[in-house]
Amino acid sequence: MSALPLDEELAEFMNERDWDQFHSPENLAKSVVIEAGELLECFQWGAEADLDRVRSELADVLTYCRLLARKLDLDAEQIVREKLAVTRGKYPVEKARGRSTKYDQL
Amino acid sequence: MSALPLDEELAEFMNERDWDQFHSPENLAKSVVIEAGELLECFQWGAEADLDRVRSELADVLTYCRLLARKLDLDAEQIVREKLAVTRGKYPVEKARGRSTKYDQL
Amino acid sequence: MSALPLDEELAEFMNERDWDQFHSPENLAKSVVIEAGELLECFQWGAEADLDRVRSELADVLTYCRLLARKLDLDAEQIVREKLAVTRGKYPVEKARGRSTKYDQL
Amino acid sequence: MSALPLDEELAEFMNERDWDQFHSPENLAKSVVIEAGELLECFQWGAEADLDRVRSELADVLTYCRLLARKLDLDAEQIVREKLAVTRGKYPVEKARGRSTKYDQL
Repeated sequence: MSALPLDEELAEFMNERDWDQFHSPENLAKSVVIEAGELLECFQWGAEADLDRVRSELADVLTYCRLLARKLDLDAEQIVREKLAVTRGKYPVEKARGRSTKYDQL
Repeated sequence: MSALPLDEELAEFMNERDWDQFHSPENLAKSVVIEAGELLECFQWGAEADLDRVRSELADVLTYCRLLARKLDLDAEQIVREKLAVTRGKYPVEKARGRSTKYDQL
Repeated sequence: MSALPLDEELAEFMNERDWDQFHSPENLAKSVVIEAGELLECFQWGAEADLDRVRSELADVLTYCRLLARKLDLDAEQIVREKLAVTRGKYPVEKARGRSTKYDQL
Repeated sequence: MSALPLDEELAEFMNERDWDQFHSPENLAKSVVIEAGELLECFQWGAEADLDRVRSELADVLTYCRLLARKLDLDAEQIVREKLAVTRGKYPVEKARGRSTKYDQL
């Protein structure tokens, strides 16, 4: 496939279509949750889902996440790492092990 | 920060806490949309949002997306590229340029 | 409790706080999905949920739905009845009985 | 239209199709957020939306909310009134007037 880094390929795609005008952070945030709803629709009535559909919908969520990150000059990998460090603090291993309880009730 | 690739760092974090048991694809899909709602909450009453909050909520969405991708043996970058190829077909430049119209109404 | 019809009680509450200015249809639609995410959070890790939390979050979803309906001069009961008639047409009993399949795949 | 109360009409519709088996509280909560995403899609790229589409999607959200309420023996009107009383306490008029600030930051 393309030799371009993914973010550049996405940017090229959007520029060709002059779609940047629609991609305010607010509209991208709406788009993330709209696509996340479609992803969940794969699991609406149970745990089993069609893998091709999941792949396609998850791709849509990730696409809008990346567009939003880029729009705000955020590095997608870096913010995940930073948040993980915060979450480590909220969920120490000895307290959180084997429990799905929220941190404020641990 | 960590020298581990991000997916391995996430896996290590989950393993330490024995959280994999909660991370069925269905529960991860639910988590993606729950966090996407929190991301949108940054923009609930308007276009302006606190960047630190957006960064934190977007990180949560991305984290659950990556966990879901890994759980289903999908490569996050690759599925975005594949979907982009599909979208190219649905939105040819000459038709889609400068319009936010959905492909089935173009 | 109040002797006012519910929609009027909600309107009074919003007017006292001068909140109508924030309640564009778009912002209300965002609010519906934000609260729907919180409702789903009650079921994030499984089928069991705390009933008081569900009650509270479902109330929030319903509140924003009613505010949106009123803003657009829609009658909440009537649109549900109308949509049910449409759905009857898409899901005839003989085809849909006992199946969760979407109408376009029946 | 029907002379039945709406909840009974919905129950009859579901019974005819034997759909109650799919309507666990968890699945209904998923359905609420899925439909809420479709409602928001009407406003994905801006404040203007097609009223017929909004009417149809809002009806879907309300339908699943009602099914969930009924499943949990909750009265939709009553829980909205109860929550409104709670919200009154969190947002006193003198503090909240004309502001969209969340209660914990007022």
